[in-house]
Amino acid sequence: MTYCVGMLLQDGLVMMSDSRTNAGVDHIATHQKLRLWDESDDRLMVLLSAGNLSLTQMVTNLLDEGIAMGGSDTPRTLYDVSSMFQAADMIGEAIRQVYRVHGPSLKEHGEGFNASFILGGQLKGREMRLFNIYAAGNHIAATADTPYFQIGELKYGKPILDRVLHFDTPLMDAVKLGLISMDSTLRSNISVGLPLRLVVIERETLTVRIDRTITEDDPYFNMIREGWSDALRKAYESLPDPDWTNGN
Amino acid sequence: MTYCVGMLLQDGLVMMSDSRTNAGVDHIATHQKLRLWDESDDRLMVLLSAGNLSLTQMVTNLLDEGIAMGGSDTPRTLYDVSSMFQAADMIGEAIRQVYRVHGPSLKEHGEGFNASFILGGQLKGREMRLFNIYAAGNHIAATADTPYFQIGELKYGKPILDRVLHFDTPLMDAVKLGLISMDSTLRSNISVGLPLRLVVIERETLTVRIDRTITEDDPYFNMIREGWSDALRKAYESLPDPDWTNGN
Repeated sequence: MTYCVGMLLQDGLVMMSDSRTNAGVDHIATHQKLRLWDESDDRLMVLLSAGNLSLTQMVTNLLDEGIAMGGSDTPRTLYDVSSMFQAADMIGEAIRQVYRVHGPSLKEHGEGFNASFILGGQLKGREMRLFNIYAAGNHIAATADTPYFQIGELKYGKPILDRVLHFDTPLMDAVKLGLISMDSTLRSNISVGLPLRLVVIERETLTVRIDRTITEDDPYFNMIREGWSDALRKAYESLPDPDWTNGN
Repeated sequence: MTYCVGMLLQDGLVMMSDSRTNAGVDHIATHQKLRLWDESDDRLMVLLSAGNLSLTQMVTNLLDEGIAMGGSDTPRTLYDVSSMFQAADMIGEAIRQVYRVHGPSLKEHGEGFNASFILGGQLKGREMRLFNIYAAGNHIAATADTPYFQIGELKYGKPILDRVLHFDTPLMDAVKLGLISMDSTLRSNISVGLPLRLVVIERETLTVRIDRTITEDDPYFNMIREGWSDALRKAYESLPDPDWTNGN
């Protein structure tokens, strides 16, 4: 499995993924699930992926080779689109092209078509946006009311985000929350694993502020892991016990 | 869905369930998912159930009517078994009897056979035990290493238990942890809902120390909900921000 979270905040984007893939418990590998498009000055995009690794890799390969869309025969890439909405549509089209080729055969083998994506980014002069793109290629956009998306093994790390993350949470606080959410998932589910990849982009800058691979030796992440366990223990100890006795 | 958690601790048992059932989002009802066998002085048992409500209800109905087991024609109930292991086996047999009647037809209708149970209890002079019973009727027992089981919508509430709950956690602390785990689930998943039912049994006493239905008006649970959110916010604020800048 995988756990990825993308946050669209007042100050910018926080995108985070783990790197474990597994086909059964004895076939575990490390694969990048975060992809950056940063080779142009007029745009910056980050894609997180979850699901069947062969499918998500084929989608990113197609995006690199270029996709013919909207009746045109000319293959276009994410460097050609003129809005994040068009970028989300292009990824949706790439998913459908992979589905057309591989979907029926996977079905015959009893495998589902599992692939989902979180796309965040900004084009020069346009709004910064965050999309959740589903296996059918359709997508939804984050808003200030619900400023984050998760894909993959998402439930363990959801409660902390649901309680504390808001649109106006500062970027570094959001990084901290994302790492806590990741750690909750890592502790409870062995199919999610280090290293993590973290990308932070400030709004309007079109530059990557942080691009970090977080391994088990990372001092800050280890401090978060221990500090959070201690803090949780103290938090629950600080709450009084109930005074219920004798059958109610 | 459902969320139930059962804990077997040094001092006794803590058993907790929500009460929401739903068939789609517009067919929501409140049903008891905790069942107590307390009409005999020599035993005390608590059963938590999750899955398809018709299946789990049919299982408890069968347990009430009595089940013929082990080649005998005489129907026996949980008041007839001489160990918790036999009780878990009897529930497994009840599940299989329901499966034999309803499994094939459910399959034809494209429905899975979803039913799982947590059984806790003690017989006079015997060990207190906790079992997780699966849809096939097989079961596993809790040990001091892993002193709790969850069934239903379990992932949201698992991280806090994984981090803080131990075999020697005092009963009232475990109640608090269970309520925090429940609250995490209630906040992140609308298919789990109040009221909760909580039963606490001290080891060797064979009496129910607490049997409480927790509604949205419960002052202690509301204090936990607010207090925990505040404590989490303070906990994450107490951790320092990372000092990463400029692309690593």
